[in-house]
Amino acid sequence: MSGNVNRDQGVATAAGFRAAGVVAGIKSNGKPDLTLVVNDGPSTAAAGVFTRNKVKAAPVLWSSQVLTTGSLRAVVLNSGGANACTGPEGFQDTHATAEKVADVLGVGAIDVAVCSTGLIGERLPMDAVLAGVDLATKELGTGAEAGLAAATGVMTTDTVAKQTALTHQDGWTVGGFAKGAGMCAPNMATMLSVITSDAVLDATVVDASLRAAVDATFNRLDVDGGTSTNDTVLLLVSGASGVEVTPAAFTEALTTVCADLVAQLQADAEGVTKHVTITVRGAATDAEAVATARTVAVDNLCKTAFFASDPNWGRIAMAVGNAPTQFDAAKLDITLNGVTVCRAGGRGEDRTGADLSGRDILVEIDLHAGEGTGTILTTDLSHAYVEENSAYSS
Amino acid sequence: MSGNVNRDQGVATAAGFRAAGVVAGIKSNGKPDLTLVVNDGPSTAAAGVFTRNKVKAAPVLWSSQVLTTGSLRAVVLNSGGANACTGPEGFQDTHATAEKVADVLGVGAIDVAVCSTGLIGERLPMDAVLAGVDLATKELGTGAEAGLAAATGVMTTDTVAKQTALTHQDGWTVGGFAKGAGMCAPNMATMLSVITSDAVLDATVVDASLRAAVDATFNRLDVDGGTSTNDTVLLLVSGASGVEVTPAAFTEALTTVCADLVAQLQADAEGVTKHVTITVRGAATDAEAVATARTVAVDNLCKTAFFASDPNWGRIAMAVGNAPTQFDAAKLDITLNGVTVCRAGGRGEDRTGADLSGRDILVEIDLHAGEGTGTILTTDLSHAYVEENSAYSS
Repeated sequence: MSGNVNRDQGVATAAGFRAAGVVAGIKSNGKPDLTLVVNDGPSTAAAGVFTRNKVKAAPVLWSSQVLTTGSLRAVVLNSGGANACTGPEGFQDTHATAEKVADVLGVGAIDVAVCSTGLIGERLPMDAVLAGVDLATKELGTGAEAGLAAATGVMTTDTVAKQTALTHQDGWTVGGFAKGAGMCAPNMATMLSVITSDAVLDATVVDASLRAAVDATFNRLDVDGGTSTNDTVLLLVSGASGVEVTPAAFTEALTTVCADLVAQLQADAEGVTKHVTITVRGAATDAEAVATARTVAVDNLCKTAFFASDPNWGRIAMAVGNAPTQFDAAKLDITLNGVTVCRAGGRGEDRTGADLSGRDILVEIDLHAGEGTGTILTTDLSHAYVEENSAYSS
Repeated sequence: MSGNVNRDQGVATAAGFRAAGVVAGIKSNGKPDLTLVVNDGPSTAAAGVFTRNKVKAAPVLWSSQVLTTGSLRAVVLNSGGANACTGPEGFQDTHATAEKVADVLGVGAIDVAVCSTGLIGERLPMDAVLAGVDLATKELGTGAEAGLAAATGVMTTDTVAKQTALTHQDGWTVGGFAKGAGMCAPNMATMLSVITSDAVLDATVVDASLRAAVDATFNRLDVDGGTSTNDTVLLLVSGASGVEVTPAAFTEALTTVCADLVAQLQADAEGVTKHVTITVRGAATDAEAVATARTVAVDNLCKTAFFASDPNWGRIAMAVGNAPTQFDAAKLDITLNGVTVCRAGGRGEDRTGADLSGRDILVEIDLHAGEGTGTILTTDLSHAYVEENSAYSS
């Protein structure tokens, strides 16, 4: 990699992009709640990846249609309401929001993606949304400050804004923001993320690069097993750097940016006290390795043991035994922070030697059933998780 | 049903059975930890259902072999250690325990099932186990007191012993005990249960009746999605009443007893403050209805909302959208304690009208995609759940 990520920069660092985040009055608490990202070109290539939940929010239905063109001029995002389970009226609200952005920018509604996040099942206050679009249009800017404002406008239970950018030594940039702290998984482990780049790319590369990067990053974070109705990752490419970039170099940079955003999501997950990495080796296939890691990641008995810094590997063995993969229980190895506490399906080194008291916990599982490997990032299940999710009001 | 359940009675009420529960010293806290149930016949017909976890405890491996004979003379159970992930030595410990019981009773080891519950990954203190068998043999008795002692000897995080019996007006009885509070699901939602009957039954009926009853009861409780390594339900039939019973009448009584044990398990689940019943209608098949109910039951965002008495139906819609079933999101109905808060995929009656402040929460979901129906019982995710499962020491 010829460049490092910089969390002071974000979605408005790549040439050709402007962004803003404003207080539109959608949230009742007066915090920023509307973000606008504009691509001034010359290219308008774009791609999107959306939730696999069968209950899709209105903005997901809209934006996935828009993205079939492979082109975007702008993205408008709001927090303070998911606009999910809002029926035909909710879809009309999304459409009206896109129309409003199209009007003020002088483009077509088909050029505008819409994202929403917040409570499911309530209509958005459209007066506030539409006035917010006017306000955001006036605030559009470039660079670090505009990127941070954009990242801030989409926050819900997030405690910090999450952005990053990578500027390659050859003079092109990939950067973006993400939001999400709960309802994260098992695919598209964020509610919303927008990433921009000024690389010059063949249009067909944009979609393939985004899918590859998302599969290796956002799809490997699992906070609580709940794939939301609104999950969206969008990539917009302006080509404004004038630098032609190979697909491999672009995908590498994009994956680095996505991985850094995922690390920030994991660090800010609801109630998190532990950053847990679960790596499975020796599965029949990579897919089975990932599925096994995910089964451990969502198991509440494992998650509460992580919270307790408790090297209770029996709970992990129990979860592995419930995973959709075949293996010989008499060959199972489990290593916690470097100590192989379970060897050949039974007790290995003394579990008290595995120190899980720090923030980071590495769980390594070897099934000895093949060559497949896979990793899932997750968090613990803490009192704070219960508190946040029982207090998050309806 | 020509008889009612009576929770003062249990596993030693049916004629032909003796039981005991003693302090063997397996647990360090001096509480009862070894239970023995003996069938004095004349019939020794028996059946068992075991965990589907691929990591099976030594007693599960042993007892499932024993049950291939369709016959049992005794069951010995211990708390204070699961004897899971203990390798060949752990299996030898199970075998030695069965041999010991066989010796003192004058039967064969192949006539003796073994069950264990407790921490995974540690060997049992066999001196204590074997001495406990001697002690329990001397304590064997019949009736309410013996049944309660037996139910008490298998408790782990259970706060109360769980037993029940049903005596039919025709003069035969089905009764038993169960233990389990966490690591309950998605199949065999208990760690251990032993049920006895003095009905006269055709041997082939015993296994079929047990499977039917378990599928309708134990397999429909899901506390935390974790199927344990030790789950076992055993049914022993003595025929000592001399009353011939039809398969239908027996299965009905057995199902009633199992359902009452499941209700007690749900009521004593770790950290429970809510008893939640999730019923799905209108699925393509009954199996998809059950799978959909289970997806809601294990979703932590739904479970924390139940804890908060929060009618946040959007989280339920999100979970339903992740279930392995096909439906039209625009037809989804969700009813909470009688108030249809989501109708045709959108907002229905005012959610604040749904009062979830009591102990019981009924969630009714209609997918409008077919005729399939199914119900899962579950609990909320509370601070106490996190506390118990992070404090439960390794």
